[in-house]
Amino acid sequence: MAQPIVEAHDPKHVHTDEAAWLKVVREVAAELASTAVERDRAGGPPRKEVQRLRDAGLLTLLGPKTAGGGGADWRFGVRVAREISRVDGSLGQLLGYHYLNEQFVTLMGTPEQAQRWRTDSVRHRWYWAAVINPRDPDIVVSEVDGELRASGRKTFATGVRIADQLVVNATSAQGRPLPFTVPADRAGIVAHDDWNAIGQRQTESGSVTFSNVLVRPDEVLGPGEPLGPPPPWSTLVTPMIQLLFVNMYVGIALGAFDDARAYTRSTTRPWVFAKVDEARKDPLVIAQYGQLSADLRAATALADRAGDELQAALDKGLALTARERGEAAVGVAAAKVVATQVALSVTSKVFEVMGARATHPKYGFDRRFRDVRTHTLHDPVAYKILEVGDFELNDVVPEFTLYT
Amino acid sequence: MAQPIVEAHDPKHVHTDEAAWLKVVREVAAELASTAVERDRAGGPPRKEVQRLRDAGLLTLLGPKTAGGGGADWRFGVRVAREISRVDGSLGQLLGYHYLNEQFVTLMGTPEQAQRWRTDSVRHRWYWAAVINPRDPDIVVSEVDGELRASGRKTFATGVRIADQLVVNATSAQGRPLPFTVPADRAGIVAHDDWNAIGQRQTESGSVTFSNVLVRPDEVLGPGEPLGPPPPWSTLVTPMIQLLFVNMYVGIALGAFDDARAYTRSTTRPWVFAKVDEARKDPLVIAQYGQLSADLRAATALADRAGDELQAALDKGLALTARERGEAAVGVAAAKVVATQVALSVTSKVFEVMGARATHPKYGFDRRFRDVRTHTLHDPVAYKILEVGDFELNDVVPEFTLYT
Amino acid sequence: MAQPIVEAHDPKHVHTDEAAWLKVVREVAAELASTAVERDRAGGPPRKEVQRLRDAGLLTLLGPKTAGGGGADWRFGVRVAREISRVDGSLGQLLGYHYLNEQFVTLMGTPEQAQRWRTDSVRHRWYWAAVINPRDPDIVVSEVDGELRASGRKTFATGVRIADQLVVNATSAQGRPLPFTVPADRAGIVAHDDWNAIGQRQTESGSVTFSNVLVRPDEVLGPGEPLGPPPPWSTLVTPMIQLLFVNMYVGIALGAFDDARAYTRSTTRPWVFAKVDEARKDPLVIAQYGQLSADLRAATALADRAGDELQAALDKGLALTARERGEAAVGVAAAKVVATQVALSVTSKVFEVMGARATHPKYGFDRRFRDVRTHTLHDPVAYKILEVGDFELNDVVPEFTLYT
Amino acid sequence: MAQPIVEAHDPKHVHTDEAAWLKVVREVAAELASTAVERDRAGGPPRKEVQRLRDAGLLTLLGPKTAGGGGADWRFGVRVAREISRVDGSLGQLLGYHYLNEQFVTLMGTPEQAQRWRTDSVRHRWYWAAVINPRDPDIVVSEVDGELRASGRKTFATGVRIADQLVVNATSAQGRPLPFTVPADRAGIVAHDDWNAIGQRQTESGSVTFSNVLVRPDEVLGPGEPLGPPPPWSTLVTPMIQLLFVNMYVGIALGAFDDARAYTRSTTRPWVFAKVDEARKDPLVIAQYGQLSADLRAATALADRAGDELQAALDKGLALTARERGEAAVGVAAAKVVATQVALSVTSKVFEVMGARATHPKYGFDRRFRDVRTHTLHDPVAYKILEVGDFELNDVVPEFTLYT
Repeated sequence: MAQPIVEAHDPKHVHTDEAAWLKVVREVAAELASTAVERDRAGGPPRKEVQRLRDAGLLTLLGPKTAGGGGADWRFGVRVAREISRVDGSLGQLLGYHYLNEQFVTLMGTPEQAQRWRTDSVRHRWYWAAVINPRDPDIVVSEVDGELRASGRKTFATGVRIADQLVVNATSAQGRPLPFTVPADRAGIVAHDDWNAIGQRQTESGSVTFSNVLVRPDEVLGPGEPLGPPPPWSTLVTPMIQLLFVNMYVGIALGAFDDARAYTRSTTRPWVFAKVDEARKDPLVIAQYGQLSADLRAATALADRAGDELQAALDKGLALTARERGEAAVGVAAAKVVATQVALSVTSKVFEVMGARATHPKYGFDRRFRDVRTHTLHDPVAYKILEVGDFELNDVVPEFTLYT
Repeated sequence: MAQPIVEAHDPKHVHTDEAAWLKVVREVAAELASTAVERDRAGGPPRKEVQRLRDAGLLTLLGPKTAGGGGADWRFGVRVAREISRVDGSLGQLLGYHYLNEQFVTLMGTPEQAQRWRTDSVRHRWYWAAVINPRDPDIVVSEVDGELRASGRKTFATGVRIADQLVVNATSAQGRPLPFTVPADRAGIVAHDDWNAIGQRQTESGSVTFSNVLVRPDEVLGPGEPLGPPPPWSTLVTPMIQLLFVNMYVGIALGAFDDARAYTRSTTRPWVFAKVDEARKDPLVIAQYGQLSADLRAATALADRAGDELQAALDKGLALTARERGEAAVGVAAAKVVATQVALSVTSKVFEVMGARATHPKYGFDRRFRDVRTHTLHDPVAYKILEVGDFELNDVVPEFTLYT
Repeated sequence: MAQPIVEAHDPKHVHTDEAAWLKVVREVAAELASTAVERDRAGGPPRKEVQRLRDAGLLTLLGPKTAGGGGADWRFGVRVAREISRVDGSLGQLLGYHYLNEQFVTLMGTPEQAQRWRTDSVRHRWYWAAVINPRDPDIVVSEVDGELRASGRKTFATGVRIADQLVVNATSAQGRPLPFTVPADRAGIVAHDDWNAIGQRQTESGSVTFSNVLVRPDEVLGPGEPLGPPPPWSTLVTPMIQLLFVNMYVGIALGAFDDARAYTRSTTRPWVFAKVDEARKDPLVIAQYGQLSADLRAATALADRAGDELQAALDKGLALTARERGEAAVGVAAAKVVATQVALSVTSKVFEVMGARATHPKYGFDRRFRDVRTHTLHDPVAYKILEVGDFELNDVVPEFTLYT
Repeated sequence: MAQPIVEAHDPKHVHTDEAAWLKVVREVAAELASTAVERDRAGGPPRKEVQRLRDAGLLTLLGPKTAGGGGADWRFGVRVAREISRVDGSLGQLLGYHYLNEQFVTLMGTPEQAQRWRTDSVRHRWYWAAVINPRDPDIVVSEVDGELRASGRKTFATGVRIADQLVVNATSAQGRPLPFTVPADRAGIVAHDDWNAIGQRQTESGSVTFSNVLVRPDEVLGPGEPLGPPPPWSTLVTPMIQLLFVNMYVGIALGAFDDARAYTRSTTRPWVFAKVDEARKDPLVIAQYGQLSADLRAATALADRAGDELQAALDKGLALTARERGEAAVGVAAAKVVATQVALSVTSKVFEVMGARATHPKYGFDRRFRDVRTHTLHDPVAYKILEVGDFELNDVVPEFTLYT
């Protein structure tokens, strides 16, 4: 058997138990793979599959070890999301978003809050979703009869229908940031069944409305008073999610490559003018695999490098400077540019090494392209290219926003 | 309103009535456009739409004028198929295949047969399908009790379920070519409802079986005796169908561009970091349109040039030399390489100038990519590239086959 | 022998004597080819070669037939420049610029002036240069002692050192446009020997200074009084020169392809792992030729289409509308985008089908890349892409400038 | 100042003194940069510059620490060659080839020979060249009057004219491999002054002839008797040199990027239609830098990953399996594909962000393209693509040759 084109682990990087975790991840992935095509067709929330992730310990993989979590870092978290994306883009996204959402309490809350919520999260093995989309008006928290009540609507919010706990990026009536966390089943929260896209079809990224939703005082995140601009470290949330995207795209593209290879080996007939008895011996087919692999290896290597650099920034904690934060963000942006371009190319070109019959829907090979094509529009890659260029040419690091 | 990026006609080329025909074609196209997304989703044979083509006179557009047909040449026929593909790839293919299939009787039959069948075709406004796929075993015609009987199976045969008349590329029991034409409802012919692909979903390209099908003596095409190799002119059938493919791809890509432009103008929101109030004023968006248009214009110009050259070859009739036939075929092959690459690129990249919400299935924007991705696998573009290279480097024109 | 990859002529387009002219052009081209590498190395003005063009009647090819010129149109003029560029980029540029410069008197002068100067031009077989570069301050014409005197400097002006007659795009002291034409040897004009670039090395595009240069009243072009904005027809000068650029790039790239093909056939050794006895039988080599040829054919077809459209605009004369002018200009811009991208790619990639020994300077194969790389920077292709995009997306035709 | 786009060092990888060495390398590089354009123009052996490398301790950087060398590994050696290539492709090649040639004694000799020659090499600070080109007939060693005498000719042999010591890949009269090492000034060795290429102009890669050259018994490398196939570890010589190529290309491309950035910042004028007062503020310029940087980062990350993997293989020594050797070689091949494609693209496109005046030869910006274009033809990248594809699709690792 050929080695997978990206190494499972690099001995220099792997914590003692990452190899063991990857083994678990791959077992789960193999199971998910067997139903992925059918679930892509049907859409709808993958509750059973999320439960499978929970049972395998993957929802709590990044939770604090002290509370029984896996204690993995972000670099490894996105690596796991990559492996899951390799068989199922929707579940890769759902798992990766959960990893980030669960950490919002660390980035936005006080240390005490972080400890409390992350401990609870591990203990109850919660799935977290976020209600955050910055392109919609804010959800507003007002004081009503001495209680805090949240109302508003977000067009897109991934995973709310399957979530146990939510983080919400709201503002006070006065326009001050007022993030909070509530159980997903709190009265007044409705996650609508209106997600529909050509790709990432099981991510349940539909709209959600908050109608007079109670927010308890201890659910409000942060010190509760204006504190000036956030420290660079807590703004790493954007490169974190962007790095997740990079790994989702790389993962989906690797999965498309895996599938194509298996199909060419087993099923593709040699072309009528090829002087070979198996398609896999046709030099024109082999050359196409070579180019696809080289591109994937480059995208993977850059994703891993950006991951190492971002993890180093995360590990600096509050000592992280704005410049260091910016350079890590630019590294992630560059990786996203390459991953986007390579993933779009690979998920389309694999058809050329499989042949016409591979377009039968029973194989679901097009879901890879649809998944990448859909999610890479989350924010325009043209603007990521600008970010990288502005850094190189003008020595400018991007400002913190929910896209940069 | 901006001009369409491909001119409707070039004054030097247009026969008196091509402009009038294009007007008709566009009216029909506008109607087909309104239901194309829904029909793509549902699949199934577009009987009503083929009837609409019939009523508009488009099925008989290439029929002899003497019999009441439009008398259009192949160059214009593929031009019409391009316009229909611009709104509906399946119908563009069904119309274009019909144009070719109807002409098989000219290329394979005696002059008398050609005249008879093409006259009947115009008179009855038949839709023609072909049972030909060269990658399956041949359908075999045997003499049984003094009658000719055809039996066999072809995996793919476009349009049989909606056809009135068929041409079949069979062989005798002795392996001699024995093409014939029969009504599609002749007893023993079953067109199976088994077409399923991610694109070109209404082309009804499923399998067909012939079980002891009667072939009347006057339905057998050709002189009925071995005649040595076919004249170059009658082997133009392959560059003809390949030129149709070129125009289908160009048409589908132009349609994707049309749709994207309308959407960007009407619906796309400017990106949060763009310092403009409309997406259409964002230089990064404008630049993407510029590159897509330049590529489409190149593919279109080359398609038209290849069409002019192929038509000139067709117009030479039996005086055409093998070398001339070969050069026209190479020109078509080069056009197919460019059309394939541009169409795959355009139908994917249009999403980047529309934005994330354009992935909602209600728009059906992905059907353009799925259509191109599916049909461009008909035969590998890598081998078309080889054909062109072999001509340029080694001065070799391709041998006649059903792919070259 | 294989056909050249671009047809010499298309029967539908060729005036009676274009085929005869092309024969002449190719004879001259063959002679120029034999010294091109050496002259590229040496640089300096190609006086002998321009004389050869003159003797062959090519300087007067576009001159009025009534005066003894060839009477060719612009479409054919750039076609000739393409053929010359195919062997020598510098001479292609010098010839093409001459064709345009000679016509400035038509576009900027009164009909009487146009007739006078163009007749003189044919009679004396002048080589024309222009002093125009819009990125420098204007040359200023002042009245001194009842005479007009011109002074100023232009950084780049192609061909002045070899010119007989100049057109100058000056302004009056009051800033009013005041174009004029003078003999190149008029006192006070100094063309400096300071052209030096990595490509187009014999174009003599150095600086020129005007020091108190006498301009006779009858040398001033135009009606001599402000007339409001120029008619669209006279602003075709920009698409005319841009179309020339398109044909230069296409010509140089075709020349690179010609040379590579001859070298691969005669000299390239098969790679050690190729299972063939000649490099030209290696499928990986053939495939590269196929892709290069397909790209070149597309660029050529689009160049020709843009030429047809521009000629149609030119043929409308003063009846041409601003919109029609704009659409022809956009067509040329799109052709320039494609020609630029293809020519840069082809002139670099040809080395891969020739092999390492082809880098010996004695072959001069790199001059093709240097020529294209140099001249394609005349104005940024990124802005041509914008022009095309702005037309497609926003239905805006470019304003007349000396770049659009 | 912006960070260089490739990090100087990754804390996890750097041996104690790599950072210190890189400081030295950059000082030397800065000096070499100041004369690189002029030396490229003049060609000829860079004796003074090689002496500068020697004085800085860089010739002995990979020499055994026990003998006073730097003790650096191959991974770091190619990293140093990358930095030198960043200012001067020829010197990067000369230094990198020396690093490999000096190690041939380790790979081909007995342990005693390795120790002896490498110790001598450090002590005398030799520059090593190799006489090896596998596409020429072998140099043959015969016994004459009881002495070994070598005769023959190699078309290309880098650096012989500046070398102190040579390794020669000869055969016995019986065709048995008979590698040896001799001083470069041994009687009968003539390095011809016939290197001439459009790039890598100071590499002195000309021909060399051996006429009856004495080879002393202790200069013959290896055990002196046939031993069966070489162990996988000693065949790492090919991925080692190929990894050097990767780093040369990446280095040259990074240098082109460095130069372009400095030029755009200091010299490029904003385009006439750009609504900015400095070229560096033009979004179309910034976007081009962003894409170039993203591509370079990917090529660099993959080069580094391939380096880590190859070093791991080297570190296994004789325990290395053929499969492990093959996988490391495939990793290097993939990195070479990407580095080749990116370096060709970057060294051409940088002109578009600098503008027309950057084509003046005084800047020498085109030498980057010429250097990459020349050396990337060493062996066809199309065959490297095949190697990668054959591994991925067919699970085949390349056989050991001097190209794979």
